[in-house]
Amino acid sequence: MDNFIIAGKTYSSRLLVGTGKYRDFAETRAAVDASGAEIITVAIRRTNLGQNPGEPNLLDVLPPSQYTFLPNTAGCYTVDDAVRTLRLARELLDGHSLVKLEVLGDPKTLYPNMVETLKAAEILIKEGFQVMVYTSDDPIAAKQLEEIGCVAVMPLASLIGSGMGILNPWNLQIIIDNATVPVIVDAGVGTASDAAIAMELGCDGVLMNTAIAAAQNPVLMASAMKKAVEAGREAYLAGRMAKKLYSANPSSPVSGTIASSKDKAS
Amino acid sequence: MDNFIIAGKTYSSRLLVGTGKYRDFAETRAAVDASGAEIITVAIRRTNLGQNPGEPNLLDVLPPSQYTFLPNTAGCYTVDDAVRTLRLARELLDGHSLVKLEVLGDPKTLYPNMVETLKAAEILIKEGFQVMVYTSDDPIAAKQLEEIGCVAVMPLASLIGSGMGILNPWNLQIIIDNATVPVIVDAGVGTASDAAIAMELGCDGVLMNTAIAAAQNPVLMASAMKKAVEAGREAYLAGRMAKKLYSANPSSPVSGTIASSKDKAS
Amino acid sequence: MDNFIIAGKTYSSRLLVGTGKYRDFAETRAAVDASGAEIITVAIRRTNLGQNPGEPNLLDVLPPSQYTFLPNTAGCYTVDDAVRTLRLARELLDGHSLVKLEVLGDPKTLYPNMVETLKAAEILIKEGFQVMVYTSDDPIAAKQLEEIGCVAVMPLASLIGSGMGILNPWNLQIIIDNATVPVIVDAGVGTASDAAIAMELGCDGVLMNTAIAAAQNPVLMASAMKKAVEAGREAYLAGRMAKKLYSANPSSPVSGTIASSKDKAS
Amino acid sequence: MDNFIIAGKTYSSRLLVGTGKYRDFAETRAAVDASGAEIITVAIRRTNLGQNPGEPNLLDVLPPSQYTFLPNTAGCYTVDDAVRTLRLARELLDGHSLVKLEVLGDPKTLYPNMVETLKAAEILIKEGFQVMVYTSDDPIAAKQLEEIGCVAVMPLASLIGSGMGILNPWNLQIIIDNATVPVIVDAGVGTASDAAIAMELGCDGVLMNTAIAAAQNPVLMASAMKKAVEAGREAYLAGRMAKKLYSANPSSPVSGTIASSKDKAS
Repeated sequence: MDNFIIAGKTYSSRLLVGTGKYRDFAETRAAVDASGAEIITVAIRRTNLGQNPGEPNLLDVLPPSQYTFLPNTAGCYTVDDAVRTLRLARELLDGHSLVKLEVLGDPKTLYPNMVETLKAAEILIKEGFQVMVYTSDDPIAAKQLEEIGCVAVMPLASLIGSGMGILNPWNLQIIIDNATVPVIVDAGVGTASDAAIAMELGCDGVLMNTAIAAAQNPVLMASAMKKAVEAGREAYLAGRMAKKLYSANPSSPVSGTIASSKDKAS
Repeated sequence: MDNFIIAGKTYSSRLLVGTGKYRDFAETRAAVDASGAEIITVAIRRTNLGQNPGEPNLLDVLPPSQYTFLPNTAGCYTVDDAVRTLRLARELLDGHSLVKLEVLGDPKTLYPNMVETLKAAEILIKEGFQVMVYTSDDPIAAKQLEEIGCVAVMPLASLIGSGMGILNPWNLQIIIDNATVPVIVDAGVGTASDAAIAMELGCDGVLMNTAIAAAQNPVLMASAMKKAVEAGREAYLAGRMAKKLYSANPSSPVSGTIASSKDKAS
Repeated sequence: MDNFIIAGKTYSSRLLVGTGKYRDFAETRAAVDASGAEIITVAIRRTNLGQNPGEPNLLDVLPPSQYTFLPNTAGCYTVDDAVRTLRLARELLDGHSLVKLEVLGDPKTLYPNMVETLKAAEILIKEGFQVMVYTSDDPIAAKQLEEIGCVAVMPLASLIGSGMGILNPWNLQIIIDNATVPVIVDAGVGTASDAAIAMELGCDGVLMNTAIAAAQNPVLMASAMKKAVEAGREAYLAGRMAKKLYSANPSSPVSGTIASSKDKAS
Repeated sequence: MDNFIIAGKTYSSRLLVGTGKYRDFAETRAAVDASGAEIITVAIRRTNLGQNPGEPNLLDVLPPSQYTFLPNTAGCYTVDDAVRTLRLARELLDGHSLVKLEVLGDPKTLYPNMVETLKAAEILIKEGFQVMVYTSDDPIAAKQLEEIGCVAVMPLASLIGSGMGILNPWNLQIIIDNATVPVIVDAGVGTASDAAIAMELGCDGVLMNTAIAAAQNPVLMASAMKKAVEAGREAYLAGRMAKKLYSANPSSPVSGTIASSKDKAS
């Protein structure tokens, strides 16, 4: 079996999805269903998990008994904000310790502030959190985050909400080569092929929100993403053919291609 | 329903596969099954459909009652060779008229000879064949082939057997924009994401052989390709999000991107 | 010496420029001067070379004694139009036989009609013209044009006037590998690096018009292009370093890259 | 005049070059001459500037009276090593304060360790150094380096010595957009067009070593790089034409392209 293990728990889906930016909770639910995701991430500062008693509560629509909730720190720009937000999440979710940390650098790019991210991760890990961490595609920073105890590293493909796809597959490749914890591409996926490419590179999973929520038909796009992640994973495991500029010339494979050099089976 | 119609017949699968380059007919069959393909193409000059009575016959493994056979002219470099080969196919397959024409330019690149392709297509159409035609990504030639009566145009993504993926998505886009017959990417797909990208561009289908047969695990790759084609089609129909360099700047979408400009829903 | 020979005449500049789309002939002249071009191409149907006696005449600004004129068939969509246009050019230019043939497929894409181009080239060559021919990046067609006697083949980088740069360097590479006449990239260059890349691929020259004329400062862009073509040529001759994903790993060059595989010295 | 100012001094060349990896100091000198560089960088740990009295001294070949020397910390993996190395450089070069800081993450990738780089930069700036700093293409880190007082930020195009060119132009674009100190692409340039692209993006300069020293003809490549940097700068200042997929459709520019969106004049 091709299992996907996060913090000791085994999942069959390698697609993680966000819950924001939908028209309403009904659409959120339909899209999550179509995606087949088992891990769903929630922006604690923007989503009602019971903080506002009179309003619709996401936990009623997506019950924690059926999904692994991943509270995140979207909108946090400092160590303090991020740590405080996740402590709140732990209260709201009855001691839940698996979280997604992100500490952003500025509101325009939403690029991570890596110095602050490292500090916040250290604090949270000391407090017993299991930290999945949003990171730039800096291979040194990704390794540092793993070494201080993060349970997964989540490099960006491109800026949050940009839909630009994987801008630098070479950095992702180095991160994957060096990692001993799961590597999950987080941010920047725009369409199905982006997710497939991430998986073909050897990523363990893909997390997305806007690509589904901002599609014209979110539920159909969620289905597309489910298939794309599975397709990319299977292609990775199947071991793709070598690239050759001239097919008739078997002795000159195009060896420098990202995908072929990363194939598990090759 | 999202039907795929070729020469008046409706198919549910948009993945067409070749039957060559497998270890044996058993592997061919297993891969075709995993791919979900309903249309399978056969190199008449290299495959026993009964020409050699004592040898294994592909028709016993993949019965024409279950699949649409698409005889092709792989290995033909002249009008004469191609026309003669397809006349033979018609005999072997009891009057079957749906064929895939390719007239190649040289044995090194296997790039099509478009002048000869146009001549052969005209002859075959006059003789009553329904011609699906392998073509370069030349938008003018693709339109000419449609105008003389080809039932589908099949532009290359890259050289046959190269696995290089889609080298020029812009030409494919022009072909798709202008076509009134199905456009099927044929040749050059190397891995799952390549197939997804072709479908996201708005192609009606994808045909491949080497990408499956030359994978280290052909049956698993066939499954990957099935999902990738479906994922790409659904993403195309779902209408992807706009690309934006800065997510926080909704007024500056990256409009020139291939995929977004080709989305059906946008 | 690194000479560039067209139809038996030696040039020192490998940049060929068009003369259209400028504000006036003074700007045309200033841009041509800054470009260092020795061969200039003229759209016979749009430029006054004496057809309209009372109007400014390009020959007064750019005297044929100083430049090699290359009359072209811009705006021609049929064999007849193209052939007639170049016969007129021969008259206007006192028997001048070096011409640039283009037969376009449609007014929207300005993509060449290769079937018509081949026919027109044959006729012109029989009539004694020395034909430099605009072509798609189809390697088979490029070779056919060479075989019937064209003195240079001029594949597009991308559509005329698009400024999209080199969309398919792999096809250009095959054309260059197979050619025994000069290969000149014509159409699609948008900025200086595009011209440098063309030269690094091993092209013999680059022809452009819009990239200079439609820049905000055409004269400065002409200077940029002069330097870019020289830079690309020198880089090609100098033999670039190998690409390596990891610098510290000398045993794994990224061999499939276009530029490195095309370096003359490698 | 288009001046290039670093730490208050004006230069006419925007190409900075390294001095290592050459066959001998004679070749170093010939390549530096051909490059036209006015600022040359020296690996203090690997180059004799007088530390080893009996051996050839670079200062005899490239006299500091004619060039601005930029001592660098190549090979340093810690704050301590980097700071100590530059203190030594200051002694060797009579109080010279302009330096290039790099603190690397590991010997395999040579990717910068950004946390250590920030710490080392702070110490050096307090000690009165004028710090030009090698950085990843992380826009937040680049801004932090500027804010603590670095006189130039020098993001990588790709890994040191890789020759892979500009892997992520989008990040470079954000860095350039936000910077108020010069941005100089450092590391990863492999051939002339790479340097031109960097300048077209709006970088203020380009620093390279291996691309010249490891070319088969380093002196010719140095000349190519000189022209490429000038070509890219002029193209940037000239304001390139808009990209359009269809030339005939002036209303649909391809606006999301890096180069066009970064043109100064547009």
